[in-house]
Amino acid sequence: MPKNVVVIGAVALGPKAACRFKRLEPDSRVVMVDKDHLISYGGCGIPYFISGDVSDPGQLQETSFHMLRDKEFFQGAKDIEVLINTEALSIDRQEKRVHIQNLTTGEDTTLPYDKLVLATGSRPRRLDILGIDLEGVFAVSNMHEAIAIKERIASGQVENALIIGGGFIGLEMAEALTDMWGIESTVVEITDQLLPGLISKNMAKIVQHHMEGQGVAFQLEDRVERLEGNKKVERAITTGGIIAADMVIVAVGAEPNSDLARAAGLEISPRSGIVVNSRMQTSDPDIYAGGDCVEVTNLITGKPGYYPLGSMANRQGRIIGTNLAGGNSEFPGGVGSFVVKVFELSVAAAGLNIDVARSEGFDAISALVIQFDRAHFYPEKDLMTLEMVVERGTGRVLGIQGVGSMGDGTVGRINAVASILKYSPTTEDIGNLELAYSPPFSAAMDILNALGNTAENILAGKNRVVDVDDFDELWKQREKGDVVFLDCRGWGNAEPFVEKYPDHWQSIPQDELRLRIAEVPKDKKLVLICNTGVRSYEAQITLDQMGIGDTCNLQGGVAALKKWGLDLV
Amino acid sequence: MPKNVVVIGAVALGPKAACRFKRLEPDSRVVMVDKDHLISYGGCGIPYFISGDVSDPGQLQETSFHMLRDKEFFQGAKDIEVLINTEALSIDRQEKRVHIQNLTTGEDTTLPYDKLVLATGSRPRRLDILGIDLEGVFAVSNMHEAIAIKERIASGQVENALIIGGGFIGLEMAEALTDMWGIESTVVEITDQLLPGLISKNMAKIVQHHMEGQGVAFQLEDRVERLEGNKKVERAITTGGIIAADMVIVAVGAEPNSDLARAAGLEISPRSGIVVNSRMQTSDPDIYAGGDCVEVTNLITGKPGYYPLGSMANRQGRIIGTNLAGGNSEFPGGVGSFVVKVFELSVAAAGLNIDVARSEGFDAISALVIQFDRAHFYPEKDLMTLEMVVERGTGRVLGIQGVGSMGDGTVGRINAVASILKYSPTTEDIGNLELAYSPPFSAAMDILNALGNTAENILAGKNRVVDVDDFDELWKQREKGDVVFLDCRGWGNAEPFVEKYPDHWQSIPQDELRLRIAEVPKDKKLVLICNTGVRSYEAQITLDQMGIGDTCNLQGGVAALKKWGLDLV
Repeated sequence: MPKNVVVIGAVALGPKAACRFKRLEPDSRVVMVDKDHLISYGGCGIPYFISGDVSDPGQLQETSFHMLRDKEFFQGAKDIEVLINTEALSIDRQEKRVHIQNLTTGEDTTLPYDKLVLATGSRPRRLDILGIDLEGVFAVSNMHEAIAIKERIASGQVENALIIGGGFIGLEMAEALTDMWGIESTVVEITDQLLPGLISKNMAKIVQHHMEGQGVAFQLEDRVERLEGNKKVERAITTGGIIAADMVIVAVGAEPNSDLARAAGLEISPRSGIVVNSRMQTSDPDIYAGGDCVEVTNLITGKPGYYPLGSMANRQGRIIGTNLAGGNSEFPGGVGSFVVKVFELSVAAAGLNIDVARSEGFDAISALVIQFDRAHFYPEKDLMTLEMVVERGTGRVLGIQGVGSMGDGTVGRINAVASILKYSPTTEDIGNLELAYSPPFSAAMDILNALGNTAENILAGKNRVVDVDDFDELWKQREKGDVVFLDCRGWGNAEPFVEKYPDHWQSIPQDELRLRIAEVPKDKKLVLICNTGVRSYEAQITLDQMGIGDTCNLQGGVAALKKWGLDLV
Repeated sequence: MPKNVVVIGAVALGPKAACRFKRLEPDSRVVMVDKDHLISYGGCGIPYFISGDVSDPGQLQETSFHMLRDKEFFQGAKDIEVLINTEALSIDRQEKRVHIQNLTTGEDTTLPYDKLVLATGSRPRRLDILGIDLEGVFAVSNMHEAIAIKERIASGQVENALIIGGGFIGLEMAEALTDMWGIESTVVEITDQLLPGLISKNMAKIVQHHMEGQGVAFQLEDRVERLEGNKKVERAITTGGIIAADMVIVAVGAEPNSDLARAAGLEISPRSGIVVNSRMQTSDPDIYAGGDCVEVTNLITGKPGYYPLGSMANRQGRIIGTNLAGGNSEFPGGVGSFVVKVFELSVAAAGLNIDVARSEGFDAISALVIQFDRAHFYPEKDLMTLEMVVERGTGRVLGIQGVGSMGDGTVGRINAVASILKYSPTTEDIGNLELAYSPPFSAAMDILNALGNTAENILAGKNRVVDVDDFDELWKQREKGDVVFLDCRGWGNAEPFVEKYPDHWQSIPQDELRLRIAEVPKDKKLVLICNTGVRSYEAQITLDQMGIGDTCNLQGGVAALKKWGLDLV
């Protein structure tokens, strides 16, 4: 029997659920309601609209083949009725109807439903500080704000921008403003790293170093206390000082828009996400919800996770559409895959980083590999950095993060692991991943395979490693004299280091180590260093064999130091 | 207790097994034997050496950081003894020793072993035709031949080249010769498609059309009967005619080099592969084998498969190294992942294509999707084509193939699926793959997710499709008058087709279909067409709803026709 379906929210999940359902049940009726008249746009494209990569806001609202996804499109192409400029005020679950108001005419009415879909999305987290309402202060929450930001920039009113928040939207905005508009941009981040929660501190350092090289300034562990200006914002007062800013972008995260659901008595999580089961049903089985307004299960921890991403919304939308039509499609949960472009880098991850893994109670280690992204003899190539988090004991892979040059190489590696994370792979599964091989695309032993093997060697206690931040500590304390930095590369590479730091830096190429073992200091801790950590691992094994065991191997080697911004010579 | 390990063969698997073993058991002794003095080179780089992308043969033999992997390298850096120019003549399994001969001095001797590793690799399949020994006829089997090919080209002796075999080495060679050297190249292939066994005929057509556009000529379903010339090859006589050729490259596949193993009484497969268990042990538990000389299990069919690839060899080598040291590492088998660059295209696959799946007895369908490889509003993007093979009934994914522009986008999608194939995923798993999302890297509904969904719709009978080759047949028979080609795109797109084929091509944009349903012919089969097959699928649903059921949807739409080379207007 044909149904009456009402969808509240017409961006991402709402349209997807509505269209899928209508394809399965063309005879049923769907009404989609949205407060705005701009609907079904790709909100994740906003930074690219602001940068100018996307010139017209309409492009974000088009299909691949240039049809505008407006009210008329949904009517004609999808047989879906859309009420724009219409707010859903409340849900009467008893009577199964939604109380709506036309925001243009002020007219109130009700929409009956058999099934209801909540696609109410998220809203940017607000900063409750003085001056937040000054002119020139924005969030990146919707197309209207995006258009206002771009107009302000294009009219030449912006010389200095402050971005509050070093998450991925903050970084995308910093790039857009710096790269395309030449605006002096400063990112203030309250934690001690960029992309907190998403990648490890060591990886974040690589991203920061790259962005600093492109002219973006950062103030970490800093908090904006108030904004000041005469009507228009002029400066920010932070715990670290004063930052001149004629534009401020607040990008401190998003939170679920669940007021309507809460008022209707649906179950809401402590984080304000609408609670849904694996069929995307709320606590009322006739009401579905998905996208930015819900929480789903994190497949690594088994706990609720919050993933406000257009890709999640689209996939969940289809599942809701199927289930509305009586299907039984399930959303298993998420592993938090993400990718972001920052200037010439791509940064991607899935699952837990080492800090999150430990705070979730996992006894975890992290392995880091820096290796060429394709055959080292192939002319076009670049070093890629991958870090994998593994549980001790079980060898279970908990997450992976990567930083590489632009293009799809890094995200491709992350996706290969993201795809299998739900099967609880071990290091051996990663070491054995059957990635398609040819010199223009990968090394015979791809960096992912190498990463699996490295993690296995670390777990086995054969490769005893330090990260760059540990190295940095040891290096700062080098005058204590209890540590020697042993360079295992050829003399040509080691020479400038030895010349600059003759008391601390020693050179014995790995292939000469057996013969020159007498030169190795026996009473000191040795930090073994090579280009990327491979030869120094070989050196560690040789030293172990020779009974010299107080060694550690710098993961990623000198390449990691450089990417981190620790230039010793 | 330290062991005595002998490794026969010092390219790819041999060195990998030897080095891994020595890292685990530094006190054991390893001797590696090779007929050649050029060892441990990346043979898969040969086409790039010939093209000139790699200028010096030494580059293929170097580590990432420019150390030459020669005899001295293995001695110094790895503590591994290498006997170059030394042939293993026979294995005495009773006495556990290998009879070897120094090819320079002629001296015979024996090497005792506790454990033996066979890394004897493959050899190119020979063509038993007249003229095969003429000067200018080559295989791409080793560095010596590669150097000879390049010298011959560089000396200006080659104007026309014939490549026998349209597998991936044949195509790589065709590109190298055409693109970098401007040699007129013809590929003769005995089957009716390029990359037979690797991708479907429809996908192969896309590759062929692209290569033809770059100036490579193809003769399919053609066989070279003999080569002619006066000492030097001058022409080939094929079943299809005469081809002028002052160079001939034979690339008709490789076969395992298992003579030594066979002579030693080890179990050999009907295809001449050395039979190994999952620990890579031969039928003699003290003898391991891996790489191009063995067969491993195809994880889709459960039958033996042959994958002569450097990546396989490296991974298997590590497993052998672990097991030599008393470990218990297993090689689960393979899914046949591969990727090849052909001019501006990358072609990748994993698992079975539709033809192989059917010949293996699977009741399978294939779904094809053409979609932008990233957000359609992102400025740099390109259409990618993916085809997935799925078992009817179970929905189990049997394989995937992709063709896209250069870069890592296509191989990244294939790898995401290759990684999970061993877990027997279904279409729903693909529809729900959590690929990292951001507009510069993917669409919110990534092409892979769309592919999973499309396959599901086909299996459910909701999307009834034809491929371009079916379309081609229907189009050729259009004068019969029982088929109408219904263009579901906007009039602007459809107009030139309608004008050129007024009797066969009709235009009703999908969003007008409900209103103009009276115009739809009721007594004819309808072939529904749009840009990529998405709107025509919507049209099919509407027509079904209206009781017009004799329709089929062209997978990939007009985009597929163009890529295939079927330009109707």
